Amino acid sequence: MQSILKPGIHWLFAFIPVAIFLEQSHASAPLIFFSAALSIVPIARLIGNSTEQLAGYTGDAVGGLLNATFGNLPELIIAVIALKAGLHGMVLASLAGAILANLLLAMGVSFLVGGIKYHNQDYNVTSIRVYSSMMLIAVISLTIPSGFHILTAEQPAGESENMLNIYLAIALLTGYILYLFFMIKTHPDFFKSEGKGNAEEHEERWSVARALITLVAASVMAAFMSEVLVGAAEETGKVLGMSSVFIGVIFLAIVGGAAESISAITMGAKNKMDLSIGIALGSSIQIALFIAPALVLMSTFVGPSQLNLNFPRGLIVALFLSVILAAMVAGDGRSNWYKGVQLILIYIIMGMMLYFIPSV
Amino acid sequence: MQSILKPGIHWLFAFIPVAIFLEQSHASAPLIFFSAALSIVPIARLIGNSTEQLAGYTGDAVGGLLNATFGNLPELIIAVIALKAGLHGMVLASLAGAILANLLLAMGVSFLVGGIKYHNQDYNVTSIRVYSSMMLIAVISLTIPSGFHILTAEQPAGESENMLNIYLAIALLTGYILYLFFMIKTHPDFFKSEGKGNAEEHEERWSVARALITLVAASVMAAFMSEVLVGAAEETGKVLGMSSVFIGVIFLAIVGGAAESISAITMGAKNKMDLSIGIALGSSIQIALFIAPALVLMSTFVGPSQLNLNFPRGLIVALFLSVILAAMVAGDGRSNWYKGVQLILIYIIMGMMLYFIPSV
Amino acid sequence: MQSILKPGIHWLFAFIPVAIFLEQSHASAPLIFFSAALSIVPIARLIGNSTEQLAGYTGDAVGGLLNATFGNLPELIIAVIALKAGLHGMVLASLAGAILANLLLAMGVSFLVGGIKYHNQDYNVTSIRVYSSMMLIAVISLTIPSGFHILTAEQPAGESENMLNIYLAIALLTGYILYLFFMIKTHPDFFKSEGKGNAEEHEERWSVARALITLVAASVMAAFMSEVLVGAAEETGKVLGMSSVFIGVIFLAIVGGAAESISAITMGAKNKMDLSIGIALGSSIQIALFIAPALVLMSTFVGPSQLNLNFPRGLIVALFLSVILAAMVAGDGRSNWYKGVQLILIYIIMGMMLYFIPSV
Repeated sequence: MQSILKPGIHWLFAFIPVAIFLEQSHASAPLIFFSAALSIVPIARLIGNSTEQLAGYTGDAVGGLLNATFGNLPELIIAVIALKAGLHGMVLASLAGAILANLLLAMGVSFLVGGIKYHNQDYNVTSIRVYSSMMLIAVISLTIPSGFHILTAEQPAGESENMLNIYLAIALLTGYILYLFFMIKTHPDFFKSEGKGNAEEHEERWSVARALITLVAASVMAAFMSEVLVGAAEETGKVLGMSSVFIGVIFLAIVGGAAESISAITMGAKNKMDLSIGIALGSSIQIALFIAPALVLMSTFVGPSQLNLNFPRGLIVALFLSVILAAMVAGDGRSNWYKGVQLILIYIIMGMMLYFIPSV
Repeated sequence: MQSILKPGIHWLFAFIPVAIFLEQSHASAPLIFFSAALSIVPIARLIGNSTEQLAGYTGDAVGGLLNATFGNLPELIIAVIALKAGLHGMVLASLAGAILANLLLAMGVSFLVGGIKYHNQDYNVTSIRVYSSMMLIAVISLTIPSGFHILTAEQPAGESENMLNIYLAIALLTGYILYLFFMIKTHPDFFKSEGKGNAEEHEERWSVARALITLVAASVMAAFMSEVLVGAAEETGKVLGMSSVFIGVIFLAIVGGAAESISAITMGAKNKMDLSIGIALGSSIQIALFIAPALVLMSTFVGPSQLNLNFPRGLIVALFLSVILAAMVAGDGRSNWYKGVQLILIYIIMGMMLYFIPSV
Repeated sequence: MQSILKPGIHWLFAFIPVAIFLEQSHASAPLIFFSAALSIVPIARLIGNSTEQLAGYTGDAVGGLLNATFGNLPELIIAVIALKAGLHGMVLASLAGAILANLLLAMGVSFLVGGIKYHNQDYNVTSIRVYSSMMLIAVISLTIPSGFHILTAEQPAGESENMLNIYLAIALLTGYILYLFFMIKTHPDFFKSEGKGNAEEHEERWSVARALITLVAASVMAAFMSEVLVGAAEETGKVLGMSSVFIGVIFLAIVGGAAESISAITMGAKNKMDLSIGIALGSSIQIALFIAPALVLMSTFVGPSQLNLNFPRGLIVALFLSVILAAMVAGDGRSNWYKGVQLILIYIIMGMMLYFIPSV
């Protein structure tokens, strides 16, 4: 399996020089954008692998923490680059898109692929309930600054809008830290896989030094290619007649989460549904409760102006409906191919909406 | 049972000549409207019976398909007639109303009647979950063209609004076809009744010819009486001081679905809850995922202009809340009389809203 | 336990003379407001105790009815006083706030405290489902007059808005009476505690006379102190820079429900989760389905003008989201400390919203 899959993804490293060459020679923006996008996929994979290797050297608890914290590093890097460029709309779009891609696309494809092979697949219901309520809390929280912005529309982010966002970010981060404590310390049994031990075929073991160096090198590469990617994003939208929200929600989000989505789907195909769902939903939670508020706090140091979580109305509704649907579809602890179809269908329909309604 | 019920419904055939006479003699619109409405109830019943008889000659799979496809023929006929008359608002109102009537009124009365007789009634939870998530997907999908219309309000349906609706219709129909495949082919066990075989007391068996001729004749009658009904609808609204949305959501919807609602309630009273719920929810799903998109595609040939699924805001919210409520109330596989009261109460309250808020 | 707790709450009676003295000497509004608030807590407790004692003399059914009807007497008294003063906005805010405080704060703290002591706590799932669907029905119903008011914004409550509210109030009260009948008569088994008998350590038994006299005296005291409280509310808001919605939702609501919230939390700490949840959710249902519509009907006699249930948009959304979240978090019949954190977190975040968005 591994030996079949690996060549495919590793080959994408070839797009690093291609993207750089295209950028230097001022090729058309979409060409640069999609080359950079493809080049980030294997880099993200590398970040994931090195984090896992590092986690192998720590205890279970710290390992879980490491995985949880670095799991969305590629998304974070892309978002920070866009933040520095002042592209707040694109940052928010890529965050929302990453959640939608995980909840609907990654989980949907995993259900579909797994369901075709195994008819029905069972998994741990308890963890799903925790994930669902965390996601609902996240989406409810994100509604509030967006609602504030809509209701007090005229000004360019007043004093109190900024304060509301800072306090909210602190509340969400507190919730996230307690969630890690709950997951790792007090109730790890809630997140156990059903039956089968989740002993993956660990290929080789890296040394700590190798893991650390790889992590740092891959992160630098990711940052560099993200710069290329984000630099070409707006122009790409114009050339292809797509809004920057659409580019952010669909393309940036899929690129940032590609490595994890592939893992989730691979696990689904191996009938390891608990791992598959854990990756897809865990990643959504992290983006909403860790990456998003962290970006708000960081923006006061890094960006030209504070990032406020004022998502466009349509995206908030899309997020809310997706969370409710995912909770309903996944909530009974048994998946099949048609559940996959349902999730993918809604992803496609939401994509249509974003394509046709530029202002959302 | 059958011999008590039948006289009641068959007698309504008498309203066919009554309605035609009233229309010819230019009687007041409400008289024409309600006579035509009553006359459609037994015709719809006839369509249902002949479809069932035809289905008896095919295998289970094709039979299920027949039932699923022709089950809402009366609704479809009424909607097509209104479509040809260019009454798009009334078409949408009757679709939304049919869903509400099935989800809340038919299921509510079935729970109430069954619950009074049997205290608690159990049914298959797995199928309820599939139905609920299908309905949620349908409602989410219908939000999108409505949102588009609200956000880009000025123009009279631009190029991109039309395209969005066509693509959405295709996506919904694809989802519906895969749902039939799931239901009939890969997971029929999900939709089995609990325990008791659903062998109804089949009175007599019709010949294929009789079934086919009855189906065609009843459909023609339905179309004819629908023409009378729809022709008098707007004028009836004016005379009674009701908006055309209210007429569509309440009266047209109840008339179109009367035959099925009666079946669902009869099954509830016989403690066959799985059949009862299957009829009520199955019919809602069909309207949302088959009739509605089919009407959009048909409107490009039949109607004066393309039908777009831009439901008024209030109806979308009503649909969404009803689906969530129905999923919550019915979701645990056990019904009682008070669950029936809950569903009926919300139907009444939504009716009040539509009566008092003409613009929704 | 009792002997530790009691001193704390009884001592608060001292705030009765303090509040009266402060009001007479025209002290600053916040001082008067918070003294009156603190003085109401033990009075509310007294009302609860005397109702319970009275209930002990009747059969189970009537006792349940008494508890159900007088349980929210303090909230009702505060609301009536505000109603007479024409402070409709504050009445609605205190109703919404009482529901939020019960659903999120009381239940959250109960889960948190209980969860720290007992790791996991199990309770009866069936009753939770009934409570959740009742609350959803309540919130859906409250959306409708609010939507009406928003859509027909200009006028100051026309004829039809008043009629809609009266009819809705009647529908809700009918639903509530049938709910009591369901709970007390036909399906009391749905509301049984799991396992352990809910025999509390009943201290002493009061005579009927004592119970009745205490009930009346405490109610009079509550009315008197509510007058002081409500009289200082608006001025307090101005001095502290808070909107009257914020004062109503947060402070009035917590004061009115303090006695019950304390009971709910105490039960949680004693691992009697069914009682704890029954108090918190039962109280929310009563406010939404009994107090709110009763106030509408009463306002036509008592108030300067009819109270209409037109909650501000933000409060309706907050209520709806809280009900969905509470249903999801509490729905599986097993609580832990982190579920408490989740509910409290959303309460805090909604408080932030109300603080920063004065117009909601």
